[in-house]
Amino acid sequence: MLGQTAREMTATVHRLDARPQPSLDPMIALVAGDLNQVNAVILDRMQSQIPLIPELAGHLIAGGGKRMRPMLTLASARLLGYTGTRHHKLAAAVEFIHTATLLHDDVVDGSDLRRGRRTANTIWGNPATVLVGDFLFSRAFELMVEDGSLKVLKILSAASAVIAEGEVNQLTAQRRIDLGEERYLDIIGAKTAALFAAACRISAVVAERNVAEENALDAYGRYLGIAFQLVDDAIDYVSDADVMGKDAGDDFREGKVTLPVILAYARGSDEDRRFWKDAIEGRRDSDDDLAHAIGLIRETRALDDTLARARHYGQRAIDALGPFAGSEAKKAMVEAVEFAIARAY
Amino acid sequence: MLGQTAREMTATVHRLDARPQPSLDPMIALVAGDLNQVNAVILDRMQSQIPLIPELAGHLIAGGGKRMRPMLTLASARLLGYTGTRHHKLAAAVEFIHTATLLHDDVVDGSDLRRGRRTANTIWGNPATVLVGDFLFSRAFELMVEDGSLKVLKILSAASAVIAEGEVNQLTAQRRIDLGEERYLDIIGAKTAALFAAACRISAVVAERNVAEENALDAYGRYLGIAFQLVDDAIDYVSDADVMGKDAGDDFREGKVTLPVILAYARGSDEDRRFWKDAIEGRRDSDDDLAHAIGLIRETRALDDTLARARHYGQRAIDALGPFAGSEAKKAMVEAVEFAIARAY
Repeated sequence: MLGQTAREMTATVHRLDARPQPSLDPMIALVAGDLNQVNAVILDRMQSQIPLIPELAGHLIAGGGKRMRPMLTLASARLLGYTGTRHHKLAAAVEFIHTATLLHDDVVDGSDLRRGRRTANTIWGNPATVLVGDFLFSRAFELMVEDGSLKVLKILSAASAVIAEGEVNQLTAQRRIDLGEERYLDIIGAKTAALFAAACRISAVVAERNVAEENALDAYGRYLGIAFQLVDDAIDYVSDADVMGKDAGDDFREGKVTLPVILAYARGSDEDRRFWKDAIEGRRDSDDDLAHAIGLIRETRALDDTLARARHYGQRAIDALGPFAGSEAKKAMVEAVEFAIARAY
Repeated sequence: MLGQTAREMTATVHRLDARPQPSLDPMIALVAGDLNQVNAVILDRMQSQIPLIPELAGHLIAGGGKRMRPMLTLASARLLGYTGTRHHKLAAAVEFIHTATLLHDDVVDGSDLRRGRRTANTIWGNPATVLVGDFLFSRAFELMVEDGSLKVLKILSAASAVIAEGEVNQLTAQRRIDLGEERYLDIIGAKTAALFAAACRISAVVAERNVAEENALDAYGRYLGIAFQLVDDAIDYVSDADVMGKDAGDDFREGKVTLPVILAYARGSDEDRRFWKDAIEGRRDSDDDLAHAIGLIRETRALDDTLARARHYGQRAIDALGPFAGSEAKKAMVEAVEFAIARAY
């Protein structure tokens, strides 16, 4: 009974790790009906008289993505009590922008696999993959124009420019062991968090809420996006992690400088630093090297502290929801943050 | 004196080939002041905190392009007597869309040279070139959003989707000798003429003209674009043509099926057709093969008739200007069409 009372007293204080097995299921259940509508828009608007376009786009769009970003648009709208349908087209536009960047990313990285499936560029080649990305990007803007909100157009065109800048920033940072945490955070803030933030913010525009609520939803999305990316980057150094269909060690073998590496490098001995420099510059990429890297990351507590950073941003995402009254939507959005973090454990 | 009178009597009937040496100079002079403003917007808005972005974008943007599309926006605005400045940002947006597609085209084609200079992808690689294209494309939309016309946004987002579709269509038509004139016209209508048309149409929107004038300017741009592309494709088979910094024979060696080839193939003997099939499929690409191809194109009058088609569309472009009163702007726009055609002679 004491426990019960204590829980009641703190009912509006949402803390990370409150649930042992947090899940995306509440958010999925919350938006299921809306998401069907969004999927219908996506299927309809990826069509073209050129058959290769829906074929290639469909491979990725139908290929098991979580629809995380459109779900955030839908959940945010639900949080605000929005009862219209404008957000269906806009959530589809967000997913098209995301899909376009994934297609271009796979070309940029020369990736073979995404979500455990062959990438579009390995099946149809780089040229078609670049061009279908361009098509989806254009279609995203057509959907926004049909909706007719210049404010939404401004938010998503700015986010698109920031994403591209972030990708170029990441490219020029490739295989540079001296990247540093600040620049790393700039990169993931741009390439990942900007679209999470925009996906949430546009719902406040559609629901005609004030700028404080817009900013709150933007912050929720942004910090959730950073937390997501940090956990993704941590998972790459968790040896048994075939969580999310991403192979452990991919980032290591590609010489990607992520926070676990940045912290291990900063905290390492001179010998460790030589190892990291060699590894990131592509001179040490065997399975033994990966095992050694994982060892160094554990020893320096770089993995723990990457996840501590993720929890910090996760908590900020949750606290950004503070102004909103309690609801099923709010609970689902809080649990989505907890889920993002818990994937690493 | 008779000649003089005859010219006066037909002063409003614009016919192709009226001048012996038509030039773009009148259009360049007409819009020179505006174009400086557009160039200032371009320079300002291609900046980024990521130094590679202006470096790479500047290589192509400063690299001797004619600024044909923004000039068409400016000339069309002048034709309509528009005296504001909104079209400066929008003309810059049009040039950004064009530049983005050129960057992606060079990646798609694996080109080494454009306008006689090394392509961005050979200097900075495909990944950076794809991403800077994405950045410029996003910036184009940001500029349009700042202008604030949903109608302009609709025109240019639709044109962008059509361009991407046209590029994919062209890609799937690669090295197919049985392409046919209809599909060829579909492709150049999408990948070239759609942006010419949109560049002209948006000026009617900015100048708040009626839909008939919008459509007239759209038609002018569209037919001029088709004529331009037809002449470009013809020039590739004019042996001494280092007009426009494009090497004769590039299309032939890359197996591109353009109208000169389509006509020569359709009109050729069985033996000629075997030659064309081999050439387009990449089995005959020597200098001797090119010389033979040029011979076949001459014999079948395929070059003459490609240019006749170009004149047909050029005349339609000129006639589309019929509803507009005579002016310096109109004269310059007529002469631009004549110039487009005359490049082949």
